[in-house]
Amino acid sequence: MVDQQAEAARFLEFAEQLADAAAAVIRPYFRSKVAIDQKADDSPVTIADREAEQAMRALIERTFPDHGIEGEEFGGVRLDSDYVWHLDPIDGTKSFITGRPLFGTLVSLAHHGRPVAGVIDHCMMDERWTGATGMPSRWNGEPIAIRACQKLRDAVLYVTSPMMFKKPGEREAFARIEHAVGLPMYGGDCYAYGLLAMGFADVIVEADLDTHDYLALIPVIEGAGGVITDWKGRALDPGSDGRVLAAGDRRVHEEALELLQSVVD
Amino acid sequence: MVDQQAEAARFLEFAEQLADAAAAVIRPYFRSKVAIDQKADDSPVTIADREAEQAMRALIERTFPDHGIEGEEFGGVRLDSDYVWHLDPIDGTKSFITGRPLFGTLVSLAHHGRPVAGVIDHCMMDERWTGATGMPSRWNGEPIAIRACQKLRDAVLYVTSPMMFKKPGEREAFARIEHAVGLPMYGGDCYAYGLLAMGFADVIVEADLDTHDYLALIPVIEGAGGVITDWKGRALDPGSDGRVLAAGDRRVHEEALELLQSVVD
Repeated sequence: MVDQQAEAARFLEFAEQLADAAAAVIRPYFRSKVAIDQKADDSPVTIADREAEQAMRALIERTFPDHGIEGEEFGGVRLDSDYVWHLDPIDGTKSFITGRPLFGTLVSLAHHGRPVAGVIDHCMMDERWTGATGMPSRWNGEPIAIRACQKLRDAVLYVTSPMMFKKPGEREAFARIEHAVGLPMYGGDCYAYGLLAMGFADVIVEADLDTHDYLALIPVIEGAGGVITDWKGRALDPGSDGRVLAAGDRRVHEEALELLQSVVD
Repeated sequence: MVDQQAEAARFLEFAEQLADAAAAVIRPYFRSKVAIDQKADDSPVTIADREAEQAMRALIERTFPDHGIEGEEFGGVRLDSDYVWHLDPIDGTKSFITGRPLFGTLVSLAHHGRPVAGVIDHCMMDERWTGATGMPSRWNGEPIAIRACQKLRDAVLYVTSPMMFKKPGEREAFARIEHAVGLPMYGGDCYAYGLLAMGFADVIVEADLDTHDYLALIPVIEGAGGVITDWKGRALDPGSDGRVLAAGDRRVHEEALELLQSVVD
């Protein structure tokens, strides 16, 4: 266990170096008028996304050449390795291209599909959340914790966009949560998971996320005392369906799970 | 005209001092666990809102004792004066209490109901937008301008929350815009108006706003080359109905007006 912790700490340190490398690329592009391309799934991408991912991949190749890499912009290599890095250079590209600094860089390392270290880095906000196996999660180096919240009706909900619920039943299931909570907030991006981990939000319900969108969140949320699963309460792994339910307090998580039950498949 | 400009510049300087005073109050409260009270309209308020408004009111009373003051937390005095200050100490209290630094302080001075100077100040972001009669709008001191956008289908839309459309027909009218634009973005608060004024967003559609929520936006948007009206295309003044349509490009404003036509009254 101590060995695992020491290893996780070492990997987390490297994950932070990856985030530093991405930040150095991204900062000069923010609010410069970069060209915006549309990807096959109709989501936007810029040179900042691509170069930031390339910078991280180069560092991994040099330092851990036997580790796998899965990234938003350049796909996967060595995905059958014991260790795989999952990279989202700019989570919240829509915020990035509209000049809103709430986008973040997501970095995580999974060991046999289970994340052991994660970083949520907001380079334009100078805010970074980290988490790793057996360690307390941190915000800019300071230990953080979720807050208690007994009931959904007292909870602060964050969601990036009501438009992210595209599959049958998702929007209706989300609407039940939206109307049950004390305060629904929009425009979260990955920043919202940091707020939840430090006790300023209570529940996040999202869908249509990719592996690199949610894997880094897991060590941060869990290491702060929170819980993050899919909409059925199952652990998230690289094969999950992209529906995420995060909560600070386990009681809120359970109440939200019940409201999401209706969604089939 | 030159006199008017000189006067507007002098008032703008004072408006910035008011924003400085509010910022000095608000900063230490951010992410401290302040008590949250619910107002009669069920919106949240904290000691930070109240003390920031009091600090601004005290400065006005001392400097321009014959000017009127209308503020979100402490109501109005001398509202029949030629000059009235409109104050929203924390626009986006919901962001403030959930630890998200996108809230802003709004300060404007109206002369016979027409705003002559406005400040949008985001003290936790170190970002300030200003505007005044006959002057170019500025972001942190640098002149800014809106961007061209020919069609709604190419536009970036910002809105604080889809839950702000409460009156009959409002939600449907908004939904038409939401589906017509190229990119709908949520969680705007007053920050979105700054982004629009500097050319990173193209249209904002909101409702249920108070005088102190929209008056400060007008000089900033207009001084950057944009247009801001109610949903009928009428100029906003202290008696408007709280529905706001802002656009960088006049063509997008006109197209959005057409889609909002259906809303009665």
